[in-house]
Amino acid sequence: MISFKILKRSSKSRARLGLLRTPHGDIETPAFVPVATQATVKVLNSERVLETGTQLLIANTYHLHLRPNEKIIKAHGGLHDFMNWPRPLMTDSGGFQVFSLGFGKDLGGNKITKNRATWKPSFQVEGGAQPKLLKIGEDGVHFRSHIDGKELFIGPKESMRIQKALGADIIFAFDECPPPQATREYMKRSMDKTHRWAKISLDEHDPKQALFGIVQGGKFRDLRIESARFIGSLPFDGFGIGGEFGADKKEMSRMLGWVADELPEQKPRHLLGVGYPEDIELAVRAGMDTFDCITPTHYARRGMAYTGKGMLDLMKRSYEKDKKPVDPACACVVCKTYTRSYIHHLLRAREITPLELLTFHNLHFFNAKLREIREKIKRGKI
Amino acid sequence: MISFKILKRSSKSRARLGLLRTPHGDIETPAFVPVATQATVKVLNSERVLETGTQLLIANTYHLHLRPNEKIIKAHGGLHDFMNWPRPLMTDSGGFQVFSLGFGKDLGGNKITKNRATWKPSFQVEGGAQPKLLKIGEDGVHFRSHIDGKELFIGPKESMRIQKALGADIIFAFDECPPPQATREYMKRSMDKTHRWAKISLDEHDPKQALFGIVQGGKFRDLRIESARFIGSLPFDGFGIGGEFGADKKEMSRMLGWVADELPEQKPRHLLGVGYPEDIELAVRAGMDTFDCITPTHYARRGMAYTGKGMLDLMKRSYEKDKKPVDPACACVVCKTYTRSYIHHLLRAREITPLELLTFHNLHFFNAKLREIREKIKRGKI
Repeated sequence: MISFKILKRSSKSRARLGLLRTPHGDIETPAFVPVATQATVKVLNSERVLETGTQLLIANTYHLHLRPNEKIIKAHGGLHDFMNWPRPLMTDSGGFQVFSLGFGKDLGGNKITKNRATWKPSFQVEGGAQPKLLKIGEDGVHFRSHIDGKELFIGPKESMRIQKALGADIIFAFDECPPPQATREYMKRSMDKTHRWAKISLDEHDPKQALFGIVQGGKFRDLRIESARFIGSLPFDGFGIGGEFGADKKEMSRMLGWVADELPEQKPRHLLGVGYPEDIELAVRAGMDTFDCITPTHYARRGMAYTGKGMLDLMKRSYEKDKKPVDPACACVVCKTYTRSYIHHLLRAREITPLELLTFHNLHFFNAKLREIREKIKRGKI
Repeated sequence: MISFKILKRSSKSRARLGLLRTPHGDIETPAFVPVATQATVKVLNSERVLETGTQLLIANTYHLHLRPNEKIIKAHGGLHDFMNWPRPLMTDSGGFQVFSLGFGKDLGGNKITKNRATWKPSFQVEGGAQPKLLKIGEDGVHFRSHIDGKELFIGPKESMRIQKALGADIIFAFDECPPPQATREYMKRSMDKTHRWAKISLDEHDPKQALFGIVQGGKFRDLRIESARFIGSLPFDGFGIGGEFGADKKEMSRMLGWVADELPEQKPRHLLGVGYPEDIELAVRAGMDTFDCITPTHYARRGMAYTGKGMLDLMKRSYEKDKKPVDPACACVVCKTYTRSYIHHLLRAREITPLELLTFHNLHFFNAKLREIREKIKRGKI
């Protein structure tokens, strides 16, 4: 099981410095959580991920259920052993992927994202609407595998069973994650179902694993507060905040603050799927402790490097002769060893090596950023 | 410059144990030379390549001339600095790629390989024939870039100039590398041209780099012996043996022995583009010292692992629950850390991580194999 100790509270914001203890080691919070969707951080082996300063990973229940399936992983001794990750692990509930792939097709894309640029603004998910590829019932969701089209079913009981077999230190309650286009009526009904599923998840989970309940409510302040109060009143070990938060970063920040105020202070709070470095600092100020997001690994595979001076697109011709490190201010082994010119060449030549180098650097950058934030809280600067 | 010392000669074969000293460190021979075509061993960063026990790499002059171009690499401080490889480096002459891409189109494939399964047996390259995509003249070859179709020219002078800018420890004389389908008449004319180019390469190369002359002659014994005598009589620092050797491994082995007998004993001999572990042992017995080949890295990217008991195709369903290491007899970190089951899952899930793990293992396997061969020579077992 886990324990969480708040070491220091900011006097200027809701930020807090914490220590999250798990059966696989301690996590200094606020902490960034890289995503290991299919039991690997894309392009990096587990030893390399450790070297980036990563404290905690999150793997995806939906993906691992479909392939290789939790039975294979359980027979292997669980996810830690399977992927050779000796440190703490989270698994998500599977809800986000089921709904994002299901609604995503209706919305004309492959999946739902928080990226507004890809939305169809005219589309609304009405109260009572059913996405075409899903059948959402009281007990869970019928859906089709994105790999082979097979019909599958996941509800709170199934999610707990799968996550138990995977054996992460921290697991999440099964929730419905509606698209940002949902109307208030849809969101309210969905939230109520998520609340019913939260109780079932609590009853069904293995108490050796820490269970986090998920707050939903979308961009509607009253629903968010209602959800935070309800989920916060249940004996979860911590909380996840899911879904989307409205128009911009300011609104997200305000909404997270309201949610934080309703949650029990002594328990850890995980913000699901956010974000960019600037979002993370806002979320820390709003009282969040951990954050998972694909941005550092996703952009690395597209030749994009995070630096103290913004993001660099290393495919650009201007880096052809640039002998500087990716980020001159960075202490990672990639920045100590390789140049922009070399990585630019390898990207142009369609090699795989630069994707590994940039994934390493970007994860190191995020972990260093969070270390800096922890330092700031310690010194009363946040 | 380099020096080469023979530490022990086998009494049962032409095998020899040697020490090749270069400005970037010593190489114990016989040694395997992984291929870093575009200034990276595909999928592995340079530090990881070092950890596989690799002593020496070979990069491709043709590819680096086209992209990023030798000027960029020279301005970066040379190839060692560009790719952060602190140990010895070879560059090939560019000849093989120019001819293999040029003739390959005529022969219906994308490039020439030594793999007989892809040949068109009815096709012959007659004496005086010109491949459609090349114009071979007395001074060199006009060809088109495979990247953008631009017309380019490389001859012995250009090859020496490019290889000087790249700055490897060991470089190769520019040669014509005719396809295995060449007739005796074509091969003879081609070999004579390679001999004239060898002299020009000697005159033009930077004496700070060690220059290896290349023996050609194809599958024709008398031509091979003529070529070895001629090239062996010139003041090269060592020798490369290029082209193809006839019907099977036995013939290759015999041919290499005849070539070795004609070459000065005190100079190192590099066998170009061979081969499989079993070919390497044959070639060692025939008196060869170093060997480059893409097989370990190429097959790794296709999910294939070398083991003491043959090659494994880890995509096969039979590995789904196999908790053994890739090769139970292997001491590499991948075999100590990960299982066939995990790598099978990652391959099925189309992740990149397993390609990195298998590239590491396969290179380690080849280097260990060569260490074993050196040990055998030391103990008089070869």
